[in-house]
Amino acid sequence: MKIYLAGPDVFLPDAVAVGRRKAAICAAHGLTGLYPLDNEIDLTAPDASHQIFCGNEAMMDEADAIIANLTPFRGAGADPGTVYELGYMAGRRKVCLAYSNDGSNYADRLGRLVNVTSEDGRLVDPQGLTVEDFGLVDNLMMIHALELHGCPLVTPATMPVDVWHDLAAFEACVRMAAARLMVT
Amino acid sequence: MKIYLAGPDVFLPDAVAVGRRKAAICAAHGLTGLYPLDNEIDLTAPDASHQIFCGNEAMMDEADAIIANLTPFRGAGADPGTVYELGYMAGRRKVCLAYSNDGSNYADRLGRLVNVTSEDGRLVDPQGLTVEDFGLVDNLMMIHALELHGCPLVTPATMPVDVWHDLAAFEACVRMAAARLMVT
Repeated sequence: MKIYLAGPDVFLPDAVAVGRRKAAICAAHGLTGLYPLDNEIDLTAPDASHQIFCGNEAMMDEADAIIANLTPFRGAGADPGTVYELGYMAGRRKVCLAYSNDGSNYADRLGRLVNVTSEDGRLVDPQGLTVEDFGLVDNLMMIHALELHGCPLVTPATMPVDVWHDLAAFEACVRMAAARLMVT
Repeated sequence: MKIYLAGPDVFLPDAVAVGRRKAAICAAHGLTGLYPLDNEIDLTAPDASHQIFCGNEAMMDEADAIIANLTPFRGAGADPGTVYELGYMAGRRKVCLAYSNDGSNYADRLGRLVNVTSEDGRLVDPQGLTVEDFGLVDNLMMIHALELHGCPLVTPATMPVDVWHDLAAFEACVRMAAARLMVT
């Protein structure tokens, strides 16, 4: 069974090494991890970004499930590129799993980054836009998609020191995927 | 033909009015706009967020196409909740359209928010994570998904003064959707 490994991990300085660690964890549980950087792309080609997209989409179509890293990225929420992939896999009716290495709730996290105030019974950001306040870790679309199309979001009991390299929550997802796909 | 109207518009103080304006523009082009806030949800119910998710997913399943508002939201990139929906609709093989009222490229925009530097031939953010630098308006997954599963991202020639209420780029999407779905 094949698992698409989605996440902003591909933007890390040691992106290839992280992908290898994730694939090794999958293998230890009888699964095959498919990592975007496994696709060989000529980054100097004028259509490099198009090649990356097509490679990623082909990998997703080949995979039975996705494990998405929804750890907050450049702000309070998950990486939109990763979230696109989670949505795509839900739409394809594949098994959806994800983790975030920051288990705090979205409104609290946003409140540590910008001034969140209360107005007419709703929380608002500095632009006056409503802040989702359901006590969820991120936007309700991702959180409930996981519950309905796979397994609930996995978060660690305490935030790891290195949120980009600690793979305990990822491994918990792999175990759940293996059980769900009945390969162990 | 039905169009799912996705975007952080639902977080605006006048979210309902914006949805009505969008639906009226759809109607003027012979299309039916489906707006998340059309679903009646009891926001005081303990499972309100779950009800919202199920309502939105049912609307997406009913729709023939999506028009997503990818205008940058709380940072350099699009709203992840909206992006989830774009991915879901691409996965369902519906017609995907989107607009952003900020047509600048992602790397430039991020560079106005945080310190982006050059390191070993790649752009990096303050955390050391690679900044996508393909000259695209947002993450390549969304940009190329639109090209391959619908119509290319629509952006205005100049950024409107009120990015949350100017609907010219939205209307351009509606015209493209009408032409694509052959109802006019």
